[in-house]
Amino acid sequence: MEELKKRAAERACKYIKDGMIVGMGTGSTVKHAIDILSKRKLRVVVIPTSVETEDRCREAGMELGSINELIPDIAIDGADEVDPEKNLTKGGGGALTREKIIDYRAKKFVVIVDESKLVKHLGEKHPLPVEVLPFAYERVRKELAEIFEKVEKRDFVTDQGNYILDCYGKITNPHEMELMLNNIPGVVENGLFTRNVWKVVVGAKKGVKTF
Amino acid sequence: MEELKKRAAERACKYIKDGMIVGMGTGSTVKHAIDILSKRKLRVVVIPTSVETEDRCREAGMELGSINELIPDIAIDGADEVDPEKNLTKGGGGALTREKIIDYRAKKFVVIVDESKLVKHLGEKHPLPVEVLPFAYERVRKELAEIFEKVEKRDFVTDQGNYILDCYGKITNPHEMELMLNNIPGVVENGLFTRNVWKVVVGAKKGVKTF
Repeated sequence: MEELKKRAAERACKYIKDGMIVGMGTGSTVKHAIDILSKRKLRVVVIPTSVETEDRCREAGMELGSINELIPDIAIDGADEVDPEKNLTKGGGGALTREKIIDYRAKKFVVIVDESKLVKHLGEKHPLPVEVLPFAYERVRKELAEIFEKVEKRDFVTDQGNYILDCYGKITNPHEMELMLNNIPGVVENGLFTRNVWKVVVGAKKGVKTF
Repeated sequence: MEELKKRAAERACKYIKDGMIVGMGTGSTVKHAIDILSKRKLRVVVIPTSVETEDRCREAGMELGSINELIPDIAIDGADEVDPEKNLTKGGGGALTREKIIDYRAKKFVVIVDESKLVKHLGEKHPLPVEVLPFAYERVRKELAEIFEKVEKRDFVTDQGNYILDCYGKITNPHEMELMLNNIPGVVENGLFTRNVWKVVVGAKKGVKTF
């Protein structure tokens, strides 16, 4: 599995050129991308989507920048699930909001996954994480329970001090669902990414494929 | 002006019946409603939208409840501006997210204002407050500055620990704007209320009118 992740990361890193501003995601596949990138002699500025990624990039001697000041030329990030229309769920690691701020702002957003992440419908294998304000999270949980099969509060606090509700069940209308969830008062952000994906790079046993 | 606010509050309180669960807003007009309600002999449970309202209701001896457990039969709240289609802006006091959680959940949502709050288009007199995560607020400010005439960070932190960006400019498509703003990553909530308003009660010099 690590080999498949690495292959996808290698292919994605080919899109990164000297002088670029690079949004860098979080997770096991992205770690490979950071390793690969740090071995090349490119001069890039990295905007990290988490403290974990920030630390790793700093240790690798990369220059760091802020999304407040810079717009990424490209963002490289993983996903929990990817459907054939390049819609994603993300947030298994709980960094979904920071990731979305950076990934949606990038001029090109490249998703890197191994083939186990490909699904026909989002929600098949992983729950959808929804970040909610601690005040009233129980009210929001009740609202989400009317939409999903099961909703569980994760034992976790986000970098922003909020909670994550994991929502189980197949999602057949990801774009509408993303917009709708963000308009439930008390919801900060949700792990559906249905905009701005430029390419999905898949590490598979038979080689790397992109779509 | 206080007299007009009081008149509107009096009329709105007539909708509150014995045994009801009442969402109680925040602000100068709502204060009158709390005073009036506390003088009546009704047994109600109040769900407050702010610490300020909670304290005031407790001092008045009212029973308090939580939006996590209860659904309001009615919510009474003020507004910064109201247009002829019963769309509102709220959040001059910075409590917009908590207010929206409660007001949107109420079976009936009654808005009480004095006539100075009536406008043809929202944004005529007051800016629209947008609650944003402190991380990346400058990126969000730049995005909002492409939509609005002027965007200013308020010197204020919300109950949830977030910032408020005040957005200046006339709003001609309030419903679409409400949905769109909530889908900018980094935005927690915005002060447009375009759903669920049941009645607007206006205290005017010529008497009280409702629509």
